[in-house]
Amino acid sequence: MPVNEFAEFELTKEFRDRFQQALDEHDGDFVYTSLEEVNPVDITSLLYEFSSEESKYVLDLLSLQVQSQIIKDMDSDARKNFLSIYSSEELTAIVNLLDSDDAADILNELPIKTSEEIIANLDSDLKLQVIDLLRYDENVAGGLMAKELIKAHWNWTVVECIEEIRKQAESVTKLYAVWVVDENERLLGRVALQELILSDSKTLIKDIYDDDIVSVETYMEDREVAEIMRKYDLESVPVVNVQGQLVGRITIDDVVDVISEQAEEERQLMSGITEDVEEDDSLWKNVRARLPWLLIGIFGGMLSARFMGFFEHELAKVTAIAFFVPLIQATGGNVGIQSSGLVVQSLVSPGYVEEGIGKRLVKVFSVALLNGLLLSLIVLGSTYLLFSNHQLSLIVSFALFCVVLFSSFVGTITPMIINRLGFNPALASGPFITTTSDLLGLTIYFLTVQVLI
Amino acid sequence: MPVNEFAEFELTKEFRDRFQQALDEHDGDFVYTSLEEVNPVDITSLLYEFSSEESKYVLDLLSLQVQSQIIKDMDSDARKNFLSIYSSEELTAIVNLLDSDDAADILNELPIKTSEEIIANLDSDLKLQVIDLLRYDENVAGGLMAKELIKAHWNWTVVECIEEIRKQAESVTKLYAVWVVDENERLLGRVALQELILSDSKTLIKDIYDDDIVSVETYMEDREVAEIMRKYDLESVPVVNVQGQLVGRITIDDVVDVISEQAEEERQLMSGITEDVEEDDSLWKNVRARLPWLLIGIFGGMLSARFMGFFEHELAKVTAIAFFVPLIQATGGNVGIQSSGLVVQSLVSPGYVEEGIGKRLVKVFSVALLNGLLLSLIVLGSTYLLFSNHQLSLIVSFALFCVVLFSSFVGTITPMIINRLGFNPALASGPFITTTSDLLGLTIYFLTVQVLI
Repeated sequence: MPVNEFAEFELTKEFRDRFQQALDEHDGDFVYTSLEEVNPVDITSLLYEFSSEESKYVLDLLSLQVQSQIIKDMDSDARKNFLSIYSSEELTAIVNLLDSDDAADILNELPIKTSEEIIANLDSDLKLQVIDLLRYDENVAGGLMAKELIKAHWNWTVVECIEEIRKQAESVTKLYAVWVVDENERLLGRVALQELILSDSKTLIKDIYDDDIVSVETYMEDREVAEIMRKYDLESVPVVNVQGQLVGRITIDDVVDVISEQAEEERQLMSGITEDVEEDDSLWKNVRARLPWLLIGIFGGMLSARFMGFFEHELAKVTAIAFFVPLIQATGGNVGIQSSGLVVQSLVSPGYVEEGIGKRLVKVFSVALLNGLLLSLIVLGSTYLLFSNHQLSLIVSFALFCVVLFSSFVGTITPMIINRLGFNPALASGPFITTTSDLLGLTIYFLTVQVLI
Repeated sequence: MPVNEFAEFELTKEFRDRFQQALDEHDGDFVYTSLEEVNPVDITSLLYEFSSEESKYVLDLLSLQVQSQIIKDMDSDARKNFLSIYSSEELTAIVNLLDSDDAADILNELPIKTSEEIIANLDSDLKLQVIDLLRYDENVAGGLMAKELIKAHWNWTVVECIEEIRKQAESVTKLYAVWVVDENERLLGRVALQELILSDSKTLIKDIYDDDIVSVETYMEDREVAEIMRKYDLESVPVVNVQGQLVGRITIDDVVDVISEQAEEERQLMSGITEDVEEDDSLWKNVRARLPWLLIGIFGGMLSARFMGFFEHELAKVTAIAFFVPLIQATGGNVGIQSSGLVVQSLVSPGYVEEGIGKRLVKVFSVALLNGLLLSLIVLGSTYLLFSNHQLSLIVSFALFCVVLFSSFVGTITPMIINRLGFNPALASGPFITTTSDLLGLTIYFLTVQVLI
């Protein structure tokens, strides 16, 4: 029974090595036979294991249809690199088989000269669609949508509509509904395929279409499109221009990719990685992606060293002051990360009334007050137990209390500012906030020392 | 033109306050009229702003159909709390209108006694479906699937299949395809609705069905289901039991929720928040969610203080040693977070051949070696410039080099261990790794001091 056969392909080390051997020996038969039953999606994953030249050797053995699907599924960075060994003629043949949105994505990644050459030779329909799509930024609805859709005029009958589906059966995949427009191409509503199947063939579309639909505008950000599709449980959403005319549609699979990429981007920002990097990438790329935040950390550390230098006198007198620098800094960092994490969360998935900064800060402040009190009492007790120095215990626990308050404030306000400036607020949830909290904590601690010692 | 009217509801502070006033005055007319044109999804968001009693007052004014959709869309925690003021009779009426998967989710959240009472009074079809679904854990395919689907026997004709769709038109929403089974209910393939529309009514299903499909098994984890649906761009996936029989289907909207929840969970783990908490939650819940990691940080800080106490003699001699504690710790923390962030990323979205720990560590080690060398050279130079003490400069830069190496190692290995133990590896990417790196850095630094001073 052929069910599920595709899903069962698992990329093992043994298979990879055997495949490498076949590539080395140019054993086309083995390559062809072993991939015949494999889903193109899995071939894409497999190819990441080999060089561009080897991958092209594999692709050339497969049908043009499969080639185009594999290239469509590739990770954008990997693809950019891979396609540089293709001629424009080869690329034209491949792009011609793609949906307009995927074609536009690939053309966007190619050098201008190559993409112009390809566009000039595309099939006329696709050419017009792609030219239209290339006007939009990648990260707005217009850059995400495909032009392939079934459009029905509201005065059509069901049978006319089915005829239209038949005509476009080849070009439109992922068909969930027919979009209904008026004589000026303005979007009126939708008819689900289910509805079409169950209606009498002479029924008029205007009598069965659903006008309570959600649409998005070409300039809406991909993040917002994703949020709308998630919220309203949509499998596809129509895209309209400022005149309300239907210009494309976005399907949920593209949005799922947007959501996954955003999660990955956030994770990288929160980890202090500055380039889209994977462990498999080159050594130099890995080093480079990590350096910026490490350097900023070093800079912060040298500043701290210089700052503590001003208190050499106090430190020489009571060495134990230095013992609590790690405690103060770690707590400041943790409080900062926690506060910014929560703000980032509410910025990424809003859904509540925006209460204004004031009310938010009052809440944050109350939480910090309580946490600060609890922690400083614990530290007061344990410092006294460990070092039997009541002056030191007072200094440390008072400084800690202030650090919790200030770090909460900074952790809350920073992602909001970064968001307002147009950057991803998750940036504020990584090393940025730890470095800031470290310096802040140190300053508060030594000011306390200065005053209370 | 009524297009898009739903999407345009925006929850403003003014509206919320006006609505609160209507609730206080029990002005049912205002409530009813102002919500008449609003999408139930938006009513759900609105209700989060009010108390359970007020929300119930609102719901009681709406149709049972709308009530059930609002309750279905609620956040699980909020719903649990809200439904406690409902009687089992009221709940039975609402649950009866839900799809089997949503009904099972809600029944899972209720106290056993209430849920038993409701199940006993459900419509017989739904009752059987729900009882079947309740057997599965929430986080496996069986707990995610709905029983509502269109099943066609492979020897049917297209017209028989359409008749089946007509019969179930009311219960099956989100219909994308018909699933084809043999006489033993074993899944054979699918027929897309598009195909059904375009085929002659006498065509046999067995002549048009697609057998290259992906299915999942009831016990597959939700995370894996999400990954499969994302990878193969599926809008719905059939669920089979161990005998290969079709038992349900999962639609992409449920999986999008799984993906969003996972991203949120990761963000919380990476921020050191231990409970699913939002800024809107109660003060005490906010305090409690933050305390555990803060306490662990405090414990680490006290340990550091105790540890530095052993070096009081050295510190008293060369106070400047203390100046570099922040530098060492910050760099250790940053390196640790970066390394674990990358490992978490590769664990969450795999797709490469598992190379084994050995090869991975070699790569990580090389990156750390290069970064460590670069950073310690910079620190060597700047420490000497700032403090003109070549012994101190050597100690600090050598310790820093070692810290980069060790923190890389710990940051890489920790999420792998946590993952192996069955926890979410993102746990390793937050305060856990900073606390560990802090202690590690301090130990390395003072050991270097001891040896070189």
